Amino acid sequence: MTAVAGIDVGGTKCLGVLFDGYEIVKSVRRPTPHAKELVTTLVEIAKELGTYSTIGVGMPGLITPEGVVRASPNLKGATDFDLRSQLETRLNHRVTVENDATSATHAEWQVGAGRGSSDLWMVTLGTGIGGGLVIGGKLQRGSHGFAGEIGHMVVHPDGLSCPCGRRGCWERYASGSGLAAIAGGERGEEVIARAASGDAQATELLDVFGKWVAIGLANLTNITDPDVIVIGGGLATSADVIMPHIRNWFGQILYSPEHRAHPELRVAQLGESAGAIGAALLSTN
Amino acid sequence: MTAVAGIDVGGTKCLGVLFDGYEIVKSVRRPTPHAKELVTTLVEIAKELGTYSTIGVGMPGLITPEGVVRASPNLKGATDFDLRSQLETRLNHRVTVENDATSATHAEWQVGAGRGSSDLWMVTLGTGIGGGLVIGGKLQRGSHGFAGEIGHMVVHPDGLSCPCGRRGCWERYASGSGLAAIAGGERGEEVIARAASGDAQATELLDVFGKWVAIGLANLTNITDPDVIVIGGGLATSADVIMPHIRNWFGQILYSPEHRAHPELRVAQLGESAGAIGAALLSTN
Repeated sequence: MTAVAGIDVGGTKCLGVLFDGYEIVKSVRRPTPHAKELVTTLVEIAKELGTYSTIGVGMPGLITPEGVVRASPNLKGATDFDLRSQLETRLNHRVTVENDATSATHAEWQVGAGRGSSDLWMVTLGTGIGGGLVIGGKLQRGSHGFAGEIGHMVVHPDGLSCPCGRRGCWERYASGSGLAAIAGGERGEEVIARAASGDAQATELLDVFGKWVAIGLANLTNITDPDVIVIGGGLATSADVIMPHIRNWFGQILYSPEHRAHPELRVAQLGESAGAIGAALLSTN
Repeated sequence: MTAVAGIDVGGTKCLGVLFDGYEIVKSVRRPTPHAKELVTTLVEIAKELGTYSTIGVGMPGLITPEGVVRASPNLKGATDFDLRSQLETRLNHRVTVENDATSATHAEWQVGAGRGSSDLWMVTLGTGIGGGLVIGGKLQRGSHGFAGEIGHMVVHPDGLSCPCGRRGCWERYASGSGLAAIAGGERGEEVIARAASGDAQATELLDVFGKWVAIGLANLTNITDPDVIVIGGGLATSADVIMPHIRNWFGQILYSPEHRAHPELRVAQLGESAGAIGAALLSTN
């Protein structure tokens, strides 16, 4: 196949890749600008990537099927913003725009840790929590393209305030910032590093964190009954330290655990490139 | 069409119907027996229903695609029980066995309140909470047939104990027994009757209850992005009293409510017959 291009818009950087079906043959990075400059930055990345047959963008937030960014809480100024048509005009090329977590889900399902699954959740544990789902052998976006906003599943109605305006959203507890909150402000990376070196107090904090992650994973399992859950995002790079806690709690918290097949919890394989690869693969549809 | 037969196994009664595609042409009721006697009771109902082309059963609990009852918490003695093959032997007829909430979902989607939806949740608020989902225009059962166990979505990890062994399951708060718990033991029906006659304290209790219902509905919306949510079960018979509270909180609790189409909250139309009609319709597949 001719290489396909994908660009993932992250909170801090934009990553563009050329993907030939098996591997990344070129990649380009830029800091994520203010929303006003986003189109220009994406056009520059696309041009630097060179020749592609199709191109797609993975974008955080609520994205309509027409590629309009309805809301992107972590990207200043990105509200009701017609990203797709602006890019198509500037690139003179058809462009697809998908939610970034949907894109990453597609990549892990097709060419990563989720291969072979018919019913899958991809859960990205980063600063917040993103998600995407495959059900009945099909990537699902929901009726308005907004499925998978799992970070804002309320798991503690009187709990911590969330920037979204509610209380007790899952990502207040089970993301990187959630781990920091559990640790009283210490950075998540530091807690993980201390636990990795055998510190008992840090290990206890990770156990509390692992329980919060497991609560949400068990909820998703009760709701759609996946065979695989892929854990990705920044925290997945410390899978050896955090996954034992998550697995332990998940087995205990799952409803009716002795009467059902448990989904496999797998660690994502595509790392920070998942969103860009998925955006590239989805652009061929 | 020749009439199709469906039997819904409830916590207290079994309801069999003959359905001709438009309406119920015959119905038969029996008290739900101990699991040991269940096959005999279902065979009696099937025989009393008379002539049908196909027959299906809707059964609470975790049901495998092969029609084995893995666990049915509210039916004593029903664990790892091969209901389908026992019924087929006794009736000398092919029988389908589906989860009761999946059956009710199919019925409301095909011939009830959910007609025309591509992505739907059916939420039955009864003694507990059951659920079923349509996504991408297809009734979904999940990878092992266990999707829709939404009553055991944890929404308050330190909350009320659930018979399932966990704490803070949604149905501890947002079901008929949840309403009774919120009301300090008063029966849900009584609270609803008092609120209907204008009692302010009962109305406040229903508002607390409505918020708990809305929290779970908002979670389901964030997770799969439905266009319709059908509210059924025993509490839906008091929809005029409870739905205003649920709708009010749902609009407030939904993530990013100003940037997205909201799902329609609709009241179920098929009442207690939904499970039996759905079991009948699914038996034709």
